[in-house]
Amino acid sequence: MKKFTCVQDIGDLKSALAEAFEIQKDRFKYVELGRNKTLMMIFFNSSLRTRLSTQKAALNLGMNVMVLDINQGAWKLETERGVIMDGDKPEHLLEAIPVMGCYCDIIGVRSFARFEDRDFDYQETILNQFIQYSGRPVFSMEAATRHPLQSFADLITIEEYKKTARPKVVMTWAPHPRPLPQAVPNSFAEWMNATDYDFVITHPEGYELAPQFVGNAKVEYDQMKAFEGADFIYAKNWAAYTGDNYGQILSKDREWTVSDRQMAVTNNAFFMHCLPVRRNMIVTDDVIESPQSIVIPEAANREISATVVLKRLIEGLE
Amino acid sequence: MKKFTCVQDIGDLKSALAEAFEIQKDRFKYVELGRNKTLMMIFFNSSLRTRLSTQKAALNLGMNVMVLDINQGAWKLETERGVIMDGDKPEHLLEAIPVMGCYCDIIGVRSFARFEDRDFDYQETILNQFIQYSGRPVFSMEAATRHPLQSFADLITIEEYKKTARPKVVMTWAPHPRPLPQAVPNSFAEWMNATDYDFVITHPEGYELAPQFVGNAKVEYDQMKAFEGADFIYAKNWAAYTGDNYGQILSKDREWTVSDRQMAVTNNAFFMHCLPVRRNMIVTDDVIESPQSIVIPEAANREISATVVLKRLIEGLE
Amino acid sequence: MKKFTCVQDIGDLKSALAEAFEIQKDRFKYVELGRNKTLMMIFFNSSLRTRLSTQKAALNLGMNVMVLDINQGAWKLETERGVIMDGDKPEHLLEAIPVMGCYCDIIGVRSFARFEDRDFDYQETILNQFIQYSGRPVFSMEAATRHPLQSFADLITIEEYKKTARPKVVMTWAPHPRPLPQAVPNSFAEWMNATDYDFVITHPEGYELAPQFVGNAKVEYDQMKAFEGADFIYAKNWAAYTGDNYGQILSKDREWTVSDRQMAVTNNAFFMHCLPVRRNMIVTDDVIESPQSIVIPEAANREISATVVLKRLIEGLE
Repeated sequence: MKKFTCVQDIGDLKSALAEAFEIQKDRFKYVELGRNKTLMMIFFNSSLRTRLSTQKAALNLGMNVMVLDINQGAWKLETERGVIMDGDKPEHLLEAIPVMGCYCDIIGVRSFARFEDRDFDYQETILNQFIQYSGRPVFSMEAATRHPLQSFADLITIEEYKKTARPKVVMTWAPHPRPLPQAVPNSFAEWMNATDYDFVITHPEGYELAPQFVGNAKVEYDQMKAFEGADFIYAKNWAAYTGDNYGQILSKDREWTVSDRQMAVTNNAFFMHCLPVRRNMIVTDDVIESPQSIVIPEAANREISATVVLKRLIEGLE
Repeated sequence: MKKFTCVQDIGDLKSALAEAFEIQKDRFKYVELGRNKTLMMIFFNSSLRTRLSTQKAALNLGMNVMVLDINQGAWKLETERGVIMDGDKPEHLLEAIPVMGCYCDIIGVRSFARFEDRDFDYQETILNQFIQYSGRPVFSMEAATRHPLQSFADLITIEEYKKTARPKVVMTWAPHPRPLPQAVPNSFAEWMNATDYDFVITHPEGYELAPQFVGNAKVEYDQMKAFEGADFIYAKNWAAYTGDNYGQILSKDREWTVSDRQMAVTNNAFFMHCLPVRRNMIVTDDVIESPQSIVIPEAANREISATVVLKRLIEGLE
Repeated sequence: MKKFTCVQDIGDLKSALAEAFEIQKDRFKYVELGRNKTLMMIFFNSSLRTRLSTQKAALNLGMNVMVLDINQGAWKLETERGVIMDGDKPEHLLEAIPVMGCYCDIIGVRSFARFEDRDFDYQETILNQFIQYSGRPVFSMEAATRHPLQSFADLITIEEYKKTARPKVVMTWAPHPRPLPQAVPNSFAEWMNATDYDFVITHPEGYELAPQFVGNAKVEYDQMKAFEGADFIYAKNWAAYTGDNYGQILSKDREWTVSDRQMAVTNNAFFMHCLPVRRNMIVTDDVIESPQSIVIPEAANREISATVVLKRLIEGLE
């Protein structure tokens, strides 16, 4: 594997899942594989779960890890030619990125949507600069439009807990006080669409995701109807994508908060969320503390998904 | 050992000291013990000596180390049920802490007294949340009421330098420009009370420590009298504990600064301080630069105490 | 080797270069040498290339690494005796520095010129405090007056690319919007003067470097004349050194920006810069993107120079 930014990069899901379960049984099975290989983790946005789980994954493989925190404001790389660089941009990307590549074997990048320019975000400008100029395999630790390490962990979790071959999985929008990127829901949809699950997305009108991520998923505006017979509920907030509303909050309607009322119509569904979660906005205390809540094993699987991805990137090194 | 927050957790002091001296002779003796074990160090307050010495201790044992700096202001975990989390607390402790536990084997926590609420501090609210919810062995890297890694290092140092079986050890208050927590003096008193030393505490009136820490120590308000015949002087500032004065500065009287005048009545005592130390507030240049000053070997023993503690926590893993 | 702060410390350049090329071929050749040795990297100023390349060098040697970021403002060590420390300086250097030395085997320090007091800067006050009081081998990760890891990497790069035994190397001043320290040009001059190259320095009047660094180099105020027949162009900005102008910007004349006009009179010279570089201030896009630009391999050689230096410091440990 030469990069990991979306579901296509991982290839056949069955073999990826087989590797995940093998690593789950023995996390240090490949501890010799990464000897004398160095991972550089570059954070344009802060991180807790991703930082820790990815670092742990690298340690599972015996890799060395270097972490670079770049204050988002401070990362002002010049990208144009011909500019007289006498302002606040101290370096051109054509120097900065190749140099980072010099000192490591694999690069992980976290860079969120900024909600200033939809095209800038949806073209994955920052992530692609690293892919193009670093000379190293690059993987996403959550980029502007996708969070594939999370989605892969979600898939592993569903495979662990599912009771039927083709479970019904429902991704539901839920309210949140702040405008959040679409990376997690986009990416979850992309990965669910790559399975043969029965996948449904439910959200208030105006919260439609980008068509390339919705794909063939069923979109249902009636949350209660969407939840009927569900095996897994995947809750998440996101800000609007469409038109002039890009990055806006259109609703904080707590009717959408996942509670016993909605869970009652499911097939005793498991509850999932990528965390951190706002209780009684996204989900009630009762639901998240119920035996059907699998948010902690889901978070634990972040270590597993990252270990598989790093293993494959190491194997792809020349 | 399943946790390390106070002197009781270490058990028999003689065997703990024997282990300390064994490690002092060969710091890397147990370098294989921690292979593929991960220490997570979580700092709610900044640190120099504790961070470096604990990290070094983990390396002595061949452990992997992950460091998490949490800006004190930013750590606003919701702790109640039923709260609609639409404010400035982005996560509930029931999710946040178990997730941190997922990615490591042992957790070290530093969280100082805040001096806002004596009960909150003295119930060790933050530290106990980690013990209760992380699912991992937890040790204190200085908590609200104790600093046991420091006290253990202090004990090792006294055992190294003492010339009689039961030395007279005097802990003296000394002035400081800022209000400091009682964690170090509380903890030192607790550890001294667990030995058979002759232990005396001296401080101006109003600076009484909490009774559970003073224990059977002799309290002497006349500093000169306290110092008579002492073998070790342990200087430290702390803010008031009692009543409405909790967290207040009651005195900056430099008569209490440890100088040749007081040292003259001791039994050629060794001078100790946990560092950092304000010269000519806590102690004069002459005393801290004298051959009897053992503050640097005392600091060096922080690596030893942390190595013993981590070794025992690893041995206690299932 | 007991310290590394200037060209004299590395000794014979030929043998240092031989070691560099040996490591370039197999970076992990000495991966067992640093086992159970700990490098402490102390940063008073921020760093990207130096942090990453030095950390990578330590990993090449199998060392453990601890990083300490000290906000420049926060590092207010008392250095005098007799001062009553009741102000903003929380610690005396006589305690702070030996303690850092306790927990590691080798110390790297980055501390730039502050431009407040030329004597304070040019006496390398901070770096020398570490050398004097830490009890450990100390190396410079860029100090007030020199950046020897950069200069050594520059030398390695010239030796790799040179086509004649004694190339003509020209260091040219170029404009920059901010006042920059003289550490890089001082150090480059010092290292070039230690070779038998034909070494020329060119800059506008008023930008004379300190005489101890200029040494026997030829100084030429006419940039075009300086460039004639050059094999290597080394561009760098620096603020004024002399007299009352210390730390001042005297010119932002873009006539000095390195462009095809000046490169045309060279012997098809290679272009070098330590990075980060302001394009169209220091150098035009055309020159830095040309096949003769070797700024990326030059940056990559930072890992090599640091590996040689750390290897020798480890070998010098008792």
